[in-house]
Amino acid sequence: MPLPRRLLAEFIGTSLLLAAVVGSGIMGEALSRGNDGIVLLANASATAGALYVLVAVLGPISGAHFNPAVTVAMRWRGELGLRDAVAYVIVQLIAALCGVMLAHAMFGLPLVDPGTHVRTGWPQWLSEAVATFGLLLTILLGVRHRPKALPALVASYIFAAYWFTASTSFANPAVTLARAFTRTFAGIRPLDVAAFVCAQGAGAALAVGIAALLIDAGPSHRGSRGTA
Amino acid sequence: MPLPRRLLAEFIGTSLLLAAVVGSGIMGEALSRGNDGIVLLANASATAGALYVLVAVLGPISGAHFNPAVTVAMRWRGELGLRDAVAYVIVQLIAALCGVMLAHAMFGLPLVDPGTHVRTGWPQWLSEAVATFGLLLTILLGVRHRPKALPALVASYIFAAYWFTASTSFANPAVTLARAFTRTFAGIRPLDVAAFVCAQGAGAALAVGIAALLIDAGPSHRGSRGTA
Amino acid sequence: MPLPRRLLAEFIGTSLLLAAVVGSGIMGEALSRGNDGIVLLANASATAGALYVLVAVLGPISGAHFNPAVTVAMRWRGELGLRDAVAYVIVQLIAALCGVMLAHAMFGLPLVDPGTHVRTGWPQWLSEAVATFGLLLTILLGVRHRPKALPALVASYIFAAYWFTASTSFANPAVTLARAFTRTFAGIRPLDVAAFVCAQGAGAALAVGIAALLIDAGPSHRGSRGTA
Amino acid sequence: MPLPRRLLAEFIGTSLLLAAVVGSGIMGEALSRGNDGIVLLANASATAGALYVLVAVLGPISGAHFNPAVTVAMRWRGELGLRDAVAYVIVQLIAALCGVMLAHAMFGLPLVDPGTHVRTGWPQWLSEAVATFGLLLTILLGVRHRPKALPALVASYIFAAYWFTASTSFANPAVTLARAFTRTFAGIRPLDVAAFVCAQGAGAALAVGIAALLIDAGPSHRGSRGTA
Repeated sequence: MPLPRRLLAEFIGTSLLLAAVVGSGIMGEALSRGNDGIVLLANASATAGALYVLVAVLGPISGAHFNPAVTVAMRWRGELGLRDAVAYVIVQLIAALCGVMLAHAMFGLPLVDPGTHVRTGWPQWLSEAVATFGLLLTILLGVRHRPKALPALVASYIFAAYWFTASTSFANPAVTLARAFTRTFAGIRPLDVAAFVCAQGAGAALAVGIAALLIDAGPSHRGSRGTA
Repeated sequence: MPLPRRLLAEFIGTSLLLAAVVGSGIMGEALSRGNDGIVLLANASATAGALYVLVAVLGPISGAHFNPAVTVAMRWRGELGLRDAVAYVIVQLIAALCGVMLAHAMFGLPLVDPGTHVRTGWPQWLSEAVATFGLLLTILLGVRHRPKALPALVASYIFAAYWFTASTSFANPAVTLARAFTRTFAGIRPLDVAAFVCAQGAGAALAVGIAALLIDAGPSHRGSRGTA
Repeated sequence: MPLPRRLLAEFIGTSLLLAAVVGSGIMGEALSRGNDGIVLLANASATAGALYVLVAVLGPISGAHFNPAVTVAMRWRGELGLRDAVAYVIVQLIAALCGVMLAHAMFGLPLVDPGTHVRTGWPQWLSEAVATFGLLLTILLGVRHRPKALPALVASYIFAAYWFTASTSFANPAVTLARAFTRTFAGIRPLDVAAFVCAQGAGAALAVGIAALLIDAGPSHRGSRGTA
Repeated sequence: MPLPRRLLAEFIGTSLLLAAVVGSGIMGEALSRGNDGIVLLANASATAGALYVLVAVLGPISGAHFNPAVTVAMRWRGELGLRDAVAYVIVQLIAALCGVMLAHAMFGLPLVDPGTHVRTGWPQWLSEAVATFGLLLTILLGVRHRPKALPALVASYIFAAYWFTASTSFANPAVTLARAFTRTFAGIRPLDVAAFVCAQGAGAALAVGIAALLIDAGPSHRGSRGTA
């Protein structure tokens, strides 16, 4: 695929993903009378539904990263050139912000509005490391053992991680930065972004290492893929 | 497939879809003590469940459009003759209204009852454009890259779009018109129908254009389909 | 498959299905503080989850009917001998009652306790006819066009029908009769069973007729199956 | 696969499973204002989402048991050597406890905190026997008839069983023991663990027996697999 087409796919996927994450949080809060359990159920299932679709229909074009942590891991494994990886990350960052503005526009809110939701401290950082570890492990093993099921795997993982981590699983530096521009349910205080991104990087690095232990290298590679 | 059989499939699919959309909204409101978050969870998942089934079992017969925006897009792409497209749209409009009446009858309500739910203004129109853009993009790319998964893709997309758009994602002119005949959760004020349909048309047109940029034309077409 | 093994599969499937339907209703009511919207969400998704599993793992053994309406329709289409069909129905009726008693035992309730939930009148009967029509259409078209997806189709359909019909979609004479023996969320007054079963029969008959119109007979049969 | 790699897969899978079970319960209670119906919906769907992913991506490495009852059943059926089975169970027990501690750490709680949730009496024990019977039957028949769908089957079954058994379906001795170390939603009083494990053993043994009745032995084995 030519690079511009792949970047267009990354742009559309990342911006719609953010629109889904932020928009469903706004809708949830508007409808659920302060019961945040219902808001998170809606937020998690809408995010999962959107991810499933976006990974399935855009994956064959760009790989459906939508996430600098994924792009860097894929670059590290040599599945992407350096120049392409840089372009992917830049587009993801811009697209994520556009997605937040799109969600705000759909709900008649100011296009950007800095987040006030405090998300800091070791439990939050551990949560982000675990969330990103799990996401990368899902992708790296899924690509190997169940490539056709990858859209469902990523969506199911994120649904679960929204609930089992204390941070509701951002697990994505572009998503984290963009969510600093919304004061709604999905927002994060700008001050807390950098530590989240560091924790995500640590989790992603650990996943790359563990995945290397779990996956055969060399000739047996193709054999085991054949039986997946 | 002969046309009458395809029209019968469109009739059954569109009317059961509307019965599911309207009926689940009525049931949700009856049970959920005014917590509209729970109503929309029920409404979105029941709609998704019905869509998955109807697209899967009727798709091989009629293509499972159930939506004039889809039929017009398919006609524009030359996958449907003009006469067939006109017949599809007429049947969809009639079937949608029959579905609303069926839902009302199942819940013992007057068969038609004009909607009073005000849905107007730029945020709502933008929402409908985004909702329809996403639906058409899902279908056009899904048919290309994941034809077998299309029922699950459409259902997942609509579930998510119910939550992340401010209008709860009508994304379908026949559905919009029919929902003007119900005063229940899923209703819309008749006055607001025309602008919704215009916004849906704009979103669908944009999706057709973007899909053309994302999908190879010509000989590479078959190649990339082969790797999906 | 020898008949006793198929009957064992029908027994296990039908009794676990009823245990899931009744048990999840009891659990839902115990936890949800009178918000019946949450109870029906739990009841519908637990039923769908159980149905998906039971149809998938027992289908290859007995066909996974679990439902006299399905067995009669399959008999009518000649896919089952008369003696087998009678044995299936008898086992389904006994198993359904055993499933209700199992659910009661798991929750420490009296093994049988006649239902008091009044479910009568034209809207309820229409609901049951529609519910059973949709279920049979899903099965008859699904077997034809998407045999591998049948477990997911049946589960998704029933989830949706729990919400979009006023009766919460019994759609099964054995289930209806057995649910007359529970006073819990899923119960039905014994007096109301007969009319439900009649409505289910009408819906099933209509589905068999419509399916015959939608499915090619003769040589084109194999051709269209090939493209599914 | 070499044993250490398989044990690493069992360790990661079992610990993330427990983190998901316990973490989503904590998050659910924190958000849901005392409505335990919403907590169990979140807990069940997060557990199902995690199970689907973990079985799918780790299954090709270790078989994705994550459960001594499964390992013992597989050993009994001769699909695992004795030494391997012992190593699996030891790793599962350690990993389950690590998963609980990980969940506690993510939410800033003491790493271990003995459970206080009383779960005893015949209805609870019957529930655990039924839950484990169903899980093992799902696995044994699923491996035979639908091996590719096993991740979805296990996840759907556990979702349903959380709701239709009175004990919320532990169905796993390692999970049961580990949950004695948390005072949160998913906890169990240490005193009640032994009887749960006995009930799980009884249910698993019954499933192995019933599965033997339902599955052809000998040459017809391959034939029926072919038609699945």
